[in-house]
Amino acid sequence: MRHFLTLKDYTKDEILEILDLADEIKAQTKKGDLKLYLKDKTLAMIFEKSSTRTRVSFEVGISQLGGKALFLSSRDIQLGRGEPVKDTARVLGRMVDMIMARVYKQSDLEELAKFSGIPVINGLSDDFHPVQLMADLMTMREFGKDINSLKVAYIGDGNNMANSYILAASKLGFELRIATPKGYEPCDSVLNLAFDFAKESGAKILLSNTPQTAINEADVVVTDTWISMGQEEEKIKRVKDFNGFTIDRVLMSLAKSDAIFLHCLPAYRGYEVSEELFEAHADEIFSEAENRLHAQKAVMVWLYRRKDE
Amino acid sequence: MRHFLTLKDYTKDEILEILDLADEIKAQTKKGDLKLYLKDKTLAMIFEKSSTRTRVSFEVGISQLGGKALFLSSRDIQLGRGEPVKDTARVLGRMVDMIMARVYKQSDLEELAKFSGIPVINGLSDDFHPVQLMADLMTMREFGKDINSLKVAYIGDGNNMANSYILAASKLGFELRIATPKGYEPCDSVLNLAFDFAKESGAKILLSNTPQTAINEADVVVTDTWISMGQEEEKIKRVKDFNGFTIDRVLMSLAKSDAIFLHCLPAYRGYEVSEELFEAHADEIFSEAENRLHAQKAVMVWLYRRKDE
Amino acid sequence: MRHFLTLKDYTKDEILEILDLADEIKAQTKKGDLKLYLKDKTLAMIFEKSSTRTRVSFEVGISQLGGKALFLSSRDIQLGRGEPVKDTARVLGRMVDMIMARVYKQSDLEELAKFSGIPVINGLSDDFHPVQLMADLMTMREFGKDINSLKVAYIGDGNNMANSYILAASKLGFELRIATPKGYEPCDSVLNLAFDFAKESGAKILLSNTPQTAINEADVVVTDTWISMGQEEEKIKRVKDFNGFTIDRVLMSLAKSDAIFLHCLPAYRGYEVSEELFEAHADEIFSEAENRLHAQKAVMVWLYRRKDE
Repeated sequence: MRHFLTLKDYTKDEILEILDLADEIKAQTKKGDLKLYLKDKTLAMIFEKSSTRTRVSFEVGISQLGGKALFLSSRDIQLGRGEPVKDTARVLGRMVDMIMARVYKQSDLEELAKFSGIPVINGLSDDFHPVQLMADLMTMREFGKDINSLKVAYIGDGNNMANSYILAASKLGFELRIATPKGYEPCDSVLNLAFDFAKESGAKILLSNTPQTAINEADVVVTDTWISMGQEEEKIKRVKDFNGFTIDRVLMSLAKSDAIFLHCLPAYRGYEVSEELFEAHADEIFSEAENRLHAQKAVMVWLYRRKDE
Repeated sequence: MRHFLTLKDYTKDEILEILDLADEIKAQTKKGDLKLYLKDKTLAMIFEKSSTRTRVSFEVGISQLGGKALFLSSRDIQLGRGEPVKDTARVLGRMVDMIMARVYKQSDLEELAKFSGIPVINGLSDDFHPVQLMADLMTMREFGKDINSLKVAYIGDGNNMANSYILAASKLGFELRIATPKGYEPCDSVLNLAFDFAKESGAKILLSNTPQTAINEADVVVTDTWISMGQEEEKIKRVKDFNGFTIDRVLMSLAKSDAIFLHCLPAYRGYEVSEELFEAHADEIFSEAENRLHAQKAVMVWLYRRKDE
Repeated sequence: MRHFLTLKDYTKDEILEILDLADEIKAQTKKGDLKLYLKDKTLAMIFEKSSTRTRVSFEVGISQLGGKALFLSSRDIQLGRGEPVKDTARVLGRMVDMIMARVYKQSDLEELAKFSGIPVINGLSDDFHPVQLMADLMTMREFGKDINSLKVAYIGDGNNMANSYILAASKLGFELRIATPKGYEPCDSVLNLAFDFAKESGAKILLSNTPQTAINEADVVVTDTWISMGQEEEKIKRVKDFNGFTIDRVLMSLAKSDAIFLHCLPAYRGYEVSEELFEAHADEIFSEAENRLHAQKAVMVWLYRRKDE
């Protein structure tokens, strides 16, 4: 039984296999002949935090594959409150075929995986966002980037997106330059793990506090919101600390001339990105959003195929 | 690409074409052989205000047509808060096939239509309720009324339902008598537009403050709640101002003897309608409710057919 | 037109017929060849109280049968507030094929049944929980218990589960021993009804305030939470009053050596059941949870077959 909780658990070959499957599934979808790989299967979607994009992409995705999603919001289900996660896991494991959960604690995902007896997918946790990474990597390849010789600049907060980029780079072996303000660096435990993986993959993971350094000659520039849900009260402090980290035309001009810009949305204009730069790269950004749909279909199909292993 | 945001944008012929399609779709549904006109298509339903009838009718409707609805409540999606409407529009446009939105501001519908690249339907806004009008017109025809020689009395608040009746009359050319208390008249901008359309259609649109005048010899009598969601604090004032506008047996006896009574629900007995009158016309009222289902299926099918125009 | 509001309305033969159908449906489901008994039918699910298990089991159930569920939470629909239950019933009756409602008042279910014109199922009310009983009875039979010669001990609160066990025993004729603290006995009206039914069925229904007496040589031991939703403020008092009613290894050892333990979940360890006892009987408990799915499919199919009677 395989789960999709973090890229830590995946080899380079497995990640590439899922990306190839995602490309094939997208092509089938566009031609209108997507195979019903998950016919009559049910996916329980647990949301501790609300999220339109995650919700829509998984719900439409399983539906396109012939299956059905159940949307369980934090008003319908409260992980660990009322009843232990292990009971919820066992009940769902008896009734549905797969679980996608958007949660706060990575440990709740691990508990679901341990007790449910069915594949569990991380839809976003405080620590990792692996399905977003699959969509990002898919988009890079679509826009002609070669994963093997890639230079990616991640500018902004050392959050779950930064963590996920660090794991992706360390597994796939590309060059990742992270620029965060002082005090917003990615956590040591993920970095230490990544440095270990990088010995095998040859990945370079570089940290700095200057966006200019990170972005120089990059193929892909990535950012994310500075103020995630639940951090609104810190907003004033964060806006001050992230001064100079707004990606605009001037900063972007340091990247390669054909560099693409990715943002997992929602985007706050005037903060992590300027309106002008956002709109200039809208096709890349909304392709990235659409690829959540296709990449996640691939993850679900891949997991389901391996469920009896 | 056509949208269904207000009857302003529709010609008489188009409205009648959709009504004919609605009749055909209802007949197919009753025979159990409804064609799967929207097989595997997905409809995103955005609700800024909750609404059982709109929710159930669209969700069952797309399902009967072979497609699938995604229910996005105000807890799942917040138009214009968190992210600009144009971003939500572009994300949904990449993932689903059609949008139905029940919103406060008509301008949010227009923004969704401008940026999504897919057909958008107004499920109800502060200004207009065009899908309800299609259900009402369908019901009138079912109960033997001739749209061309129709006298409709709309009694009550000059709200979005009144606006929609004004546009329907002005496009289709029937006689509409509106009676509201002083200060509750329909807005000038809609009336001015309608008077323009009426020049071509020959519609008569008459305003008064006396229900008796409006209802006299009417074929169809329509009312709506005096107190919509969000107006509860004005309730005492409104109940006083609408004194004398309750439709009961006495008032209804002024209409033609075979007149029908319509109400888009929910109905507040003792306010806009008496319990006795409501129950005497229950078959018409619940047929009108059911026709939301069929009329909206027709709107979706009609829009989808024209999506590449 | 039959409804499923309480076991009061069902004969022994009908209950057994539905249990047989549930077994058949479960077997078909496990083999992956479940007949689409409710193809393209829609089930409206009304939830005044939220409930993951009821939600998931009905939504997956109708989907496995080829139909579709509409989830209407208390935020989407408010029975009797805003509009009379009889109006909601008539609207839903025009748009969907069946209603499942989890409500506070049994009388709201009766009103839905009276006015909707379609079959109505009680998903749980303050008074009864008949679909849980069907799952429990199904599980007893699966674990080799003979309904005709059964001794069931129900330990805990004289609530809707106790009421439902009393009706089940009185209809099916098995022996039911109920032990509650003083002041938590089941209500007289249900008991009086059951004593009447018991004259025909030969059921024995015994009440006491000592768990040991009830559990002695029992085939099946059942409990339920002491503190249901809405009773949280009484918690301290209840925990004191239920002292000695926690089912643990010592208490369970009084039952037959092959006795099974059932719990409709959520389970509060250290209160009505010890962690050790719960986990020792986890297979029975989660089979019981899974059987909600299959028993409810059987109830829906059975009702739909009889809808034109």
